[in-house]
Amino acid sequence: MKDKKAFQRKNFSEWYIEVIRAADLAEYSPVRGCMVIKPYGYALWENIQKILDEKLKATRHKNAYFPLFIPESFLRKEKEHVKGFSPQLAVVTYGGGKKLEENLIVRPTSETIIYASFSRWIKSWRDLPLLINQWANVVRWELRPRLFLRTMEFLWQEGHTAHATHREAEEEILRILEIYRELVEKYLAIPVISGIKSDTEKFAGALRTFTIEAMTQDKKALQMGTSHDLGQNFARVFNISFQDANGQTKYVWQTSWGVSTRLIGGIIMVHGDDNGIILPPRIAPIQVVIIPVWSSKEKKDERTIREKIEKIRKKLEENDIKFLVDDRDYFSFGEKHYEWEKKGVPIRIEIGPKELNQRSVVLVRRDTSEKRMVSDISLGGEIKETLDLIQSELYQRALNFQKRNTHRVNSWDEFKKTIKTEKGFLKANWCGLSECEEVIKKETKATIRCFPLGEERKKGKCVFCNRDSFQKVIFALSY
Amino acid sequence: MKDKKAFQRKNFSEWYIEVIRAADLAEYSPVRGCMVIKPYGYALWENIQKILDEKLKATRHKNAYFPLFIPESFLRKEKEHVKGFSPQLAVVTYGGGKKLEENLIVRPTSETIIYASFSRWIKSWRDLPLLINQWANVVRWELRPRLFLRTMEFLWQEGHTAHATHREAEEEILRILEIYRELVEKYLAIPVISGIKSDTEKFAGALRTFTIEAMTQDKKALQMGTSHDLGQNFARVFNISFQDANGQTKYVWQTSWGVSTRLIGGIIMVHGDDNGIILPPRIAPIQVVIIPVWSSKEKKDERTIREKIEKIRKKLEENDIKFLVDDRDYFSFGEKHYEWEKKGVPIRIEIGPKELNQRSVVLVRRDTSEKRMVSDISLGGEIKETLDLIQSELYQRALNFQKRNTHRVNSWDEFKKTIKTEKGFLKANWCGLSECEEVIKKETKATIRCFPLGEERKKGKCVFCNRDSFQKVIFALSY
Repeated sequence: MKDKKAFQRKNFSEWYIEVIRAADLAEYSPVRGCMVIKPYGYALWENIQKILDEKLKATRHKNAYFPLFIPESFLRKEKEHVKGFSPQLAVVTYGGGKKLEENLIVRPTSETIIYASFSRWIKSWRDLPLLINQWANVVRWELRPRLFLRTMEFLWQEGHTAHATHREAEEEILRILEIYRELVEKYLAIPVISGIKSDTEKFAGALRTFTIEAMTQDKKALQMGTSHDLGQNFARVFNISFQDANGQTKYVWQTSWGVSTRLIGGIIMVHGDDNGIILPPRIAPIQVVIIPVWSSKEKKDERTIREKIEKIRKKLEENDIKFLVDDRDYFSFGEKHYEWEKKGVPIRIEIGPKELNQRSVVLVRRDTSEKRMVSDISLGGEIKETLDLIQSELYQRALNFQKRNTHRVNSWDEFKKTIKTEKGFLKANWCGLSECEEVIKKETKATIRCFPLGEERKKGKCVFCNRDSFQKVIFALSY
Repeated sequence: MKDKKAFQRKNFSEWYIEVIRAADLAEYSPVRGCMVIKPYGYALWENIQKILDEKLKATRHKNAYFPLFIPESFLRKEKEHVKGFSPQLAVVTYGGGKKLEENLIVRPTSETIIYASFSRWIKSWRDLPLLINQWANVVRWELRPRLFLRTMEFLWQEGHTAHATHREAEEEILRILEIYRELVEKYLAIPVISGIKSDTEKFAGALRTFTIEAMTQDKKALQMGTSHDLGQNFARVFNISFQDANGQTKYVWQTSWGVSTRLIGGIIMVHGDDNGIILPPRIAPIQVVIIPVWSSKEKKDERTIREKIEKIRKKLEENDIKFLVDDRDYFSFGEKHYEWEKKGVPIRIEIGPKELNQRSVVLVRRDTSEKRMVSDISLGGEIKETLDLIQSELYQRALNFQKRNTHRVNSWDEFKKTIKTEKGFLKANWCGLSECEEVIKKETKATIRCFPLGEERKKGKCVFCNRDSFQKVIFALSY
């Protein structure tokens, strides 16, 4: 069997850029660090948006829209927050031809501008919980941009909620983490580890950050979404308080959370091969492409094949399958085959004169290259089943890969050796001290991805300093 | 009958701000000129987006996303374009802590950044037509902001297309104008005049601008959407060319077009009254609100009413009606009544003990205040019919208003008197000279809204200078 991952293994970064280009998903723009999301890439984003938006609305979140610009003084109100974001800011200093009295920051995230509104909106316990979501663009200056993973401007959703008690806020944080996990595992077919960030890695201004972490095919970690416990940090500086049912004034408890166009980077890095990207059927803009094969001389074949395609069209529509008929006559069969392979369309259907005679079509799976004849009669159902099968096998394959590349390490020597030779996720005890975390990062580039949720708390020794440790964490190289 | 438009007539601007506040649609933000679109206002925008997005996709347009920032040099390439937009720009001069070598403009519109991509994407006749749409935020510095109508940042869609011939581009421009007209008339229930802008009023950089113009209840014109014939102006400066089927290199012909959150301002200004906004059923986030009436003592009533509501719920769901049951127990019936009135929900259903006995409910129309009993049996169908009726009557009422306030004027004296006393749309002959247009604007504040499409070309005399004129135009005061 042909090795379909030789290029990918050889140079993962180059492979990544090349498959994005080949699939026509996105490109760098003349503005340094910014990307253009091309129609095929944007259709993927719209599919992700639609799924998540429905889940958020079903859990009583409401969409709203807040200003792109944040007055500099707002951003400075929460000390940790401004410290975290200030190296990454784009600053507007001129407007309408005049120098501004106060600089405006292009939002890197919207806590401060949104919470200025929250402090006006929230007065009574009746206004809680306040569950707001925003679909927007944000800007963070990036020195080493990478399409979808890290671009100066990116698209995302940011949720912002306020609650009467810390307990309700904590429930919300986990509810969202679970929605993210479901989105990523069930739709993007990407297995993730849910967990809590270390203090060094948490969101600037949060008490705690929850995360879902995926493993790419080059065995690095990719953070796919985060959900933050903001405690009352922002409530205090923005004075967001409410009267409870007993007439007492209290600060609210807040959460914020987001996923971005980075998810598309995840899909590419987890599923793709040397022939291009591979899209999970549930989020693919085109699930099935139908390629008719006729020679220009045989007008009779063309007519009969077109009639057959009309019948197939009906069956696919009945089954709610997203399909495209590629009857462009200025491209050869080979060119079309190659194009849809690069674009990762899950199923290809080929129909030529031979298939006409046999009352069947050829069905080709993008993920496995498996090719088989399917009779016309069973076509609708069989395509549907095959799409489901591809969806679950993509997930299972990625899960096996993640498990195969997760290593328990018990000593510092073992740690250093494993991260160098094997990479992947390293499960190791850690003492909880930032100093240890820092040295480990300095020596190996590995960072703590998370304390996995649901992990048993058992006493052990820190993999680096040998101090007592009560929980294993996951270390990895990361994007 | 009570006069429900006294406040509106007395001070339209104050009325406008007040009903927006009362309906909880939007508010000014601490950033001068920017607005916060609150959940109810944003739900309205999402409904508009959904309708338009489907229409654009059905006509083969594809969504994509381009950078927020435009290098200053790009904007300068098309002379008229930069002249038109330069007083309105927000300029980023610092990024990542450093002064930028080239300033970045926050997009006021995206022709220049998008056409830099088009010049890379288009090579052959096979790449045409290229039909791209973008949903995005744009920024134009505004000295006199007004919620929804004119804010520094606003949300919109901007379409950008490239064609092989001018004829195809012209077809596209009119196709889009017709989609806009249908959106505004059939869904927003706002009648419009389709027409062509004068050279003074056209888009900076276009050959011609097509527009749809509505009339607000204070008898001013409100531009609701525009579709531009860009000719080859941008194609030349951005070098967007293609090889035709004969191998010849040619510049493309381009169009651009957009509608924005301004449409929401139109809905308010065309339909609202002193009790609040009035939403056309086809775009209302909530079409029906059900208000149960029970006294806290009568637990038995509450149970029976709740059972009844469950039955109604089913009927409404079967009929695809968007509804909400307002069973908040910390608000009185009066408070609820008042809130949904302000929010313009088309139909209110009230159910109390009396209605229980009569196996009926009370149905109240927001637009006419008409109140009637409807029997439980016929409820689903009758609500659906009433929603359709409200939709068509809102449109018809606005159309009558527009017609009643459209005046033919034949002399300069008549023009001045009419614009001062009656306002509205003034149909008058105009010679076509910008000098005349300018004096008319200076003396009366009226501008040419458009040359209406389909108007007969008949010889006449310019209403101001008495020179020969071949077409009537519409003058009006405008937003």
